[in-house]
Amino acid sequence: MLQQANFLDDIIAAISTPLGSGGIGIVRMSGNGCIALADTIFQGKKKLTEKPSHTLSYGKITDGPDGEVIDEVLVSVMKAPHTYTKEDIVEVNCHGGFLVTQRVLQALLNAGARLAEPGEFTKRGFLNGRIDLTQAEAIIDLIQSKTELSRQAAVNQLEGRLKTEVRQMRQEIIDMIASIEAVIDYPDYDIEEETYDSMEKGAKKLLARMEKLLAGADRGKILREGLQTVIVGKPNVGKSSLLNWFLEEDRAIVTDIPGTTRDTVEEYINIDGIPVKIVDTAGIRETGDVVEKMGVEKSKAYAEQADLILMMLDASRPLEAEDREILSFIDGKHSIVMLNKSDLEQKLSLEELEQFVPKEQILFVSVKENTGFDALIDAIKTLFFSGQTATADDVLLGNTRHKNALYQAKEAMERCLVTIGTRMPEDFISMDLQDASRALGEITGDVADEEIIDRIFTKFCLGK
Amino acid sequence: MLQQANFLDDIIAAISTPLGSGGIGIVRMSGNGCIALADTIFQGKKKLTEKPSHTLSYGKITDGPDGEVIDEVLVSVMKAPHTYTKEDIVEVNCHGGFLVTQRVLQALLNAGARLAEPGEFTKRGFLNGRIDLTQAEAIIDLIQSKTELSRQAAVNQLEGRLKTEVRQMRQEIIDMIASIEAVIDYPDYDIEEETYDSMEKGAKKLLARMEKLLAGADRGKILREGLQTVIVGKPNVGKSSLLNWFLEEDRAIVTDIPGTTRDTVEEYINIDGIPVKIVDTAGIRETGDVVEKMGVEKSKAYAEQADLILMMLDASRPLEAEDREILSFIDGKHSIVMLNKSDLEQKLSLEELEQFVPKEQILFVSVKENTGFDALIDAIKTLFFSGQTATADDVLLGNTRHKNALYQAKEAMERCLVTIGTRMPEDFISMDLQDASRALGEITGDVADEEIIDRIFTKFCLGK
Repeated sequence: MLQQANFLDDIIAAISTPLGSGGIGIVRMSGNGCIALADTIFQGKKKLTEKPSHTLSYGKITDGPDGEVIDEVLVSVMKAPHTYTKEDIVEVNCHGGFLVTQRVLQALLNAGARLAEPGEFTKRGFLNGRIDLTQAEAIIDLIQSKTELSRQAAVNQLEGRLKTEVRQMRQEIIDMIASIEAVIDYPDYDIEEETYDSMEKGAKKLLARMEKLLAGADRGKILREGLQTVIVGKPNVGKSSLLNWFLEEDRAIVTDIPGTTRDTVEEYINIDGIPVKIVDTAGIRETGDVVEKMGVEKSKAYAEQADLILMMLDASRPLEAEDREILSFIDGKHSIVMLNKSDLEQKLSLEELEQFVPKEQILFVSVKENTGFDALIDAIKTLFFSGQTATADDVLLGNTRHKNALYQAKEAMERCLVTIGTRMPEDFISMDLQDASRALGEITGDVADEEIIDRIFTKFCLGK
Repeated sequence: MLQQANFLDDIIAAISTPLGSGGIGIVRMSGNGCIALADTIFQGKKKLTEKPSHTLSYGKITDGPDGEVIDEVLVSVMKAPHTYTKEDIVEVNCHGGFLVTQRVLQALLNAGARLAEPGEFTKRGFLNGRIDLTQAEAIIDLIQSKTELSRQAAVNQLEGRLKTEVRQMRQEIIDMIASIEAVIDYPDYDIEEETYDSMEKGAKKLLARMEKLLAGADRGKILREGLQTVIVGKPNVGKSSLLNWFLEEDRAIVTDIPGTTRDTVEEYINIDGIPVKIVDTAGIRETGDVVEKMGVEKSKAYAEQADLILMMLDASRPLEAEDREILSFIDGKHSIVMLNKSDLEQKLSLEELEQFVPKEQILFVSVKENTGFDALIDAIKTLFFSGQTATADDVLLGNTRHKNALYQAKEAMERCLVTIGTRMPEDFISMDLQDASRALGEITGDVADEEIIDRIFTKFCLGK
């Protein structure tokens, strides 16, 4: 259904390893005829077309009319259908390095390959039926995973757990539709009361399964994308000490992942498996000091985007106007307020503070005495994981697209229950069930429009 | 001779692709028994030990007592001796991504491999006799090459051109030594005059070959490491316009290679194949404006390190004290002085300027009218490549280590010629020749101490 014959007919090529200096660089090619194409620029003992599938050949890649040697290489030949794309694949393993890898790619393009679009290899794997959309998405998640838990969740999804669950539910709905359609085909027969009952039972079970999946969605999103966190507070209340505590503890594994521009860096702190992400435009210290650098308005803008707001207050000073402004802004959002300098005489009115923030979200800490920070970890876990350490064992819905589609399926099932409950004609039940089936099919890509598919694969890196 | 049996006995592992998000990550393992080791954490159709050499197997990598799945992978099995290290090699191709690749490495380490040191795979290739030292060094050069020319030079060296030339010279010296030793063995016979003549002829030829190689050394170094360039001049003389011209022209390919710290960036500009390197601690704009940011002293410090100093002067203003200070400092160094604002009335005394800088190193430019910059390219080529476009066809000595060793060999040959000319006894000639032979042997690693070897491989990236 989604086969785009012409589009899939050509040979695509791209660099599949990260850019930068490394020991090995891989340039990957896929498509019918790509092995013969590789032969035109490969110098080895044997022609690649004469090699069996899934073998490695040593040789040289040449380019240009004079056959200039680009690099010595190992070439993997993998023949359809047992490949990543279900097409013939050639992978050139060259000596890593920015320029060498570029030149090998250029040689393949000169020989007739076309530069692949981001995600096009995986997209072919999907279009050729090797994986469904949830597995394709798991591959991006896996590549971008920041903590063990997010990696595990991605591997589970890649192994098809989400696909299986969604397809099972969809199959049950399709079976229900089929049995209803059978009745519709014999218009003289009404649905028996017994049938209504069993359909109601089935629909309720399905609804419960959908609700269970949706309940884990926030957890999944945090595991996947990290807990977007912003630290706010007036100057000199101890915000940078909090950051230092996060960063300097042994358990805090910090990974720098440079963004596309030189100025943007995202910092990930691993708190008991929960990736805590601090978006940082000019080094983490500055973002930590949002208030002093950019004022209340900027704090609000950051907080608007955040999953979690950590506000720090000086317990030895009374609340001021700008504190109140931020506090009223964070009301109703996931937030934790830390009262620093809790070792000094307390001048801040707890009563007033509790008008803004529930008691259980207020922590007493002392930067000076390094106390109270441990409770922060527990508070974060309570807020997002009902007090438990996060786990990736369940099927987690970590993806906004999945969540929206499942939400539509759930709504359709709820409508269906009303339809059944009010004993409406069978074709109305069938319509609701078809809505639910379509929404579930969008998750796996069994039903999907090209625009959605294109959007998914654009998120991939080049060469995947 | 260099075999370190115990050291080479274990199994080493490392990540061989650059860190970062990419489509494919490779974890490489080498050593006797590494295929069986991989089998302990690999789940596939067949055991890896049962697979023929140079084949790829699809499966899963697991870790931990519960056999938790880390990732789905393709595993390459390559059996000794036709491998990069001449040992058994296993390469695990996993889904790229920082964490996944780390976890696969960790699984291999848990299974009994040891983390490889930087360059240890290549070092084993050298110690096991697959490549010589110049080829090992060519691999680093190849990975780090910044322009087509430097890549070509590295490929030539990797293909063994330098090795062949150096080994040939050394063999001739060893033959000369052998013929002398033969004479020494029969003390009753003196060397005949004819023999002195032919030895002199041979030594002169060798000396000429060495001098030819040495003559290309500066060129080779520039191709390899880039032409380290600093732009100096007072504020507002047009330095940033020069940089813009470099950066904005189509031909100027600029590559960002982030350093080990976040603050350091090296910019490479490709001028007709010559990599021009500008070391930059806080963005290229600032280094360009060395004088205004850091004053004369800092300019001097930068210029001290540079291969080329580009000084910009305002032709419409007379020379000032600080101009003179910098001009007298760059006297005798490779430098080009650009007179900007040459479209305005000239107030700068050319006569005075020519006391500091030879006429042919002075260019008239106009930033406003965008004229005169083209001549800069020619001036740079004249200065470093005798006016020709650089070429990588010759055997180029791009490496300080090679240059020093060859210089020692050359000095030994010069001594040898004196020894022959003064008809000193044969064992003195032999000693000089042995010095030359040893120096040449150090280049290829046929004669080398472990310290030198260790130093070479430390420059490699991990996983190579």
